[in-house]
Amino acid sequence: MLALGVDPGSRATGYGLVEKGDTGLVLVDAGCITSTARAPFYERLYHIYESVKDVINRYHPDEMAIEDIFYAKNVRTSLRLGHVRGVILVAAVQYSIRIFEYTPLEIKKSVVGYGGATKEQVRSMVSIILNTDRTFSLDTSDALATVICHMNWSRF
Amino acid sequence: MLALGVDPGSRATGYGLVEKGDTGLVLVDAGCITSTARAPFYERLYHIYESVKDVINRYHPDEMAIEDIFYAKNVRTSLRLGHVRGVILVAAVQYSIRIFEYTPLEIKKSVVGYGGATKEQVRSMVSIILNTDRTFSLDTSDALATVICHMNWSRF
Repeated sequence: MLALGVDPGSRATGYGLVEKGDTGLVLVDAGCITSTARAPFYERLYHIYESVKDVINRYHPDEMAIEDIFYAKNVRTSLRLGHVRGVILVAAVQYSIRIFEYTPLEIKKSVVGYGGATKEQVRSMVSIILNTDRTFSLDTSDALATVICHMNWSRF
Repeated sequence: MLALGVDPGSRATGYGLVEKGDTGLVLVDAGCITSTARAPFYERLYHIYESVKDVINRYHPDEMAIEDIFYAKNVRTSLRLGHVRGVILVAAVQYSIRIFEYTPLEIKKSVVGYGGATKEQVRSMVSIILNTDRTFSLDTSDALATVICHMNWSRF
């Protein structure tokens, strides 16, 4: 079973693909979709939408895990984040990918063991769990943490 | 020139198509995309996305006018509204429709003459401007107000 994790953001959207192997979780690919802040916001949204579709077309994941956001810093941040999350969800529904949502607390607990973990701690644990030397951006490791959380939950 | 106005909402998304005729603005079509609150949110988003694409495919508007939102009641409302707005913007970019954004104040001022107008006052003025007896839902008349605002601005 191959699953895609996504960490939505208007500047940088991380993604990571993880497969469940016989000996544990295997990293398939991971990266970050970035867009120039100079382009109009709707162009950046379209770029994120097309890039997520590209990733889906390349790997055909069965499931997608994405952070469930209830709170953001402020109304403006929430609006922006909502736009990005919306286009990612629509891309997944279009390809009949099952969607699973996890709160930030569930993700951190699942990967590091406690909810107060920093992004850097999450990144370190992600590399250990996936047994890789690759250096991830924080957006990419957040996406990988989301899909690792999903793999842990879906074991049961 | 045919323009589409959209009023995004997670329960109801109003839309209206208005053409610039020789004697003024002409109503082409208007309606409301609704979705059952029981469906998962991402299914509702996909329904809105597909419905907006249907409207675009049926009428081939040149331009789209949509409310520019900076403030919503709270973070949760902003997040939801952001999702809906995001998928509508992506649908428009996909069809190379030029996008124009107007603040609620600009829309109300343009249609009723002052920014403190109620939704009901906006609806009454929309019917007068478009010279129609049709009864619109408030979501539909808000969408029509947005496109009327655009037509007024784009005159100059």
